Amino acid sequence: MLKYYLGIDLGGSKILAGLFDEELNLVGRNKMRTKPERGFASVVERIARCASDLVDDFDIKKDSIAALGIGTPGSIDAKGNVIFAGNLDWDNVPLRKQLEKVMQIPVSVENDCNVAALGIYHHELKAKPVNMVGIFLGTGVGAGLILNRQLYRGTNLIAGEIGHTVLDVNGEQCNCGNRGCFELFASRSSIFRKLGEAIKNGEETQLADKKLENLRSGDLEKAIRRGDKCVARLVDEAAHYTGIAVANVVNLLNPDVVVLGGGVIDALEDQMIPVIDKVAHEYAFPGIPPTFQVIATRLGDNAGITGAAVLAKGI
Amino acid sequence: MLKYYLGIDLGGSKILAGLFDEELNLVGRNKMRTKPERGFASVVERIARCASDLVDDFDIKKDSIAALGIGTPGSIDAKGNVIFAGNLDWDNVPLRKQLEKVMQIPVSVENDCNVAALGIYHHELKAKPVNMVGIFLGTGVGAGLILNRQLYRGTNLIAGEIGHTVLDVNGEQCNCGNRGCFELFASRSSIFRKLGEAIKNGEETQLADKKLENLRSGDLEKAIRRGDKCVARLVDEAAHYTGIAVANVVNLLNPDVVVLGGGVIDALEDQMIPVIDKVAHEYAFPGIPPTFQVIATRLGDNAGITGAAVLAKGI
Repeated sequence: MLKYYLGIDLGGSKILAGLFDEELNLVGRNKMRTKPERGFASVVERIARCASDLVDDFDIKKDSIAALGIGTPGSIDAKGNVIFAGNLDWDNVPLRKQLEKVMQIPVSVENDCNVAALGIYHHELKAKPVNMVGIFLGTGVGAGLILNRQLYRGTNLIAGEIGHTVLDVNGEQCNCGNRGCFELFASRSSIFRKLGEAIKNGEETQLADKKLENLRSGDLEKAIRRGDKCVARLVDEAAHYTGIAVANVVNLLNPDVVVLGGGVIDALEDQMIPVIDKVAHEYAFPGIPPTFQVIATRLGDNAGITGAAVLAKGI
Repeated sequence: MLKYYLGIDLGGSKILAGLFDEELNLVGRNKMRTKPERGFASVVERIARCASDLVDDFDIKKDSIAALGIGTPGSIDAKGNVIFAGNLDWDNVPLRKQLEKVMQIPVSVENDCNVAALGIYHHELKAKPVNMVGIFLGTGVGAGLILNRQLYRGTNLIAGEIGHTVLDVNGEQCNCGNRGCFELFASRSSIFRKLGEAIKNGEETQLADKKLENLRSGDLEKAIRRGDKCVARLVDEAAHYTGIAVANVVNLLNPDVVVLGGGVIDALEDQMIPVIDKVAHEYAFPGIPPTFQVIATRLGDNAGITGAAVLAKGI
């Protein structure tokens, strides 16, 4: 009998489920709103429903699903409890235990950036580099580290908080309490915040009369293509600072490759990657061979579900 | 027959040799000037002489020396060639090969910060943490990473260049070409450069009439003890920024412990460690448990020779 794996990418606003065959080819996807305001039990039920509907849609028997992997925002512990996830309002919830109870299959839980890095490393990078850093620009900014061919989790399984490394000791205050965090330069929220400030300052942009909170990274890309200089400048700045952050991690960890992903990169790859690549190589320590690569993931928003399936399969 | 190991700490100005017994207890030390201006062959001969004199001093037979380890500035390759070391003016020199030829024993070569981290990890930290970051403040600033209980070297064996990670995107230009590198805030050279500027600006300090290029970190410590407010402020600032750099690496790598060492810390531990520790905990991401430790090495300037002996023994 064929075996299948379920990979779940849990976000603050949506649940994305992927059904994968034994070679981790994507069979199909399903999407559902997270609705975290309904509470933990409801979110677990929605994850299960999103996954079960997907299995049912492809006429696959429930008992041929071997395992489920899930990437979740926030910090987790070794038992698959989510210790803290701000955008879900979760505080020490037994995600793995509850999902196993509802789904009746083995469940593996991992931080979302770690999961995306796993997906990129195992499913996309055929050359299997020894050391890879995945950096994800979305609502926030995070990283997943593959060091010596293994996911590096850190002592408390919370490694990779690159969004809260300081790039500007005299910079603006971040929600985390620090000043000048990388996230303040390159997250979607930060780019839109800066766009709002630019509009307030009377800068000309096609997005001036739009409700910024309803816009997505793709709207920035469209505006740039239509010649919006203000948006182009803001995105260029975000890419510039991301390049410095990439160089910082290159100088510290000397990886083969840095892979960028997340919603901001998915939408703005053509605008951002050339700048990030150039600045990262300029800021890399002279002793670092310039052969390290800076690329965008080809998996797009499938990185999370793919990595979750990798996790489920236990590679 | 008893076996012994030689550990060498090679610096731009001095060679330090340590003789260690089989349990890596320090039997004795010897010191010699490096005199890099005489060229590579001469430095190799001086290293060999420094080591051989030490062995002879302790009436130990040459053939009971099992191996020699050496920590060198700069970047090395897997064959023990030093690819580049600015302060020795070395460019692709066969350090391991030449030392083996002269000493007639197996030689292991490693970057100096990596070696110091190895020494601290294997000889000082009895609790054997899973993940340790060693940060060394001397003429320059570097790091050695122990991740998952192993020395992490990076793809080109050049990981750990924390001194050239950017803390201030708008900061001063560094020798490496970047702006606002950590090294510009906390190396000995930087502290003395800032002291020079303060003196030029007419700030009051007991060191105003001294030749700064002849002073050492210990002179800063003495001045602070004598109530020198200018020096106290400069050292406090260096500690503050080091705390931010520590938090950056804690947020990225989530280690159990960050150990500070190097000449600046050896001299100014009491002034700097409390500040570094406080700032690092303030800037650590809220999800990182505050249990991570920030300490100074107890090995002082023996960290390098101890780690080199660890390397020689091949732990």
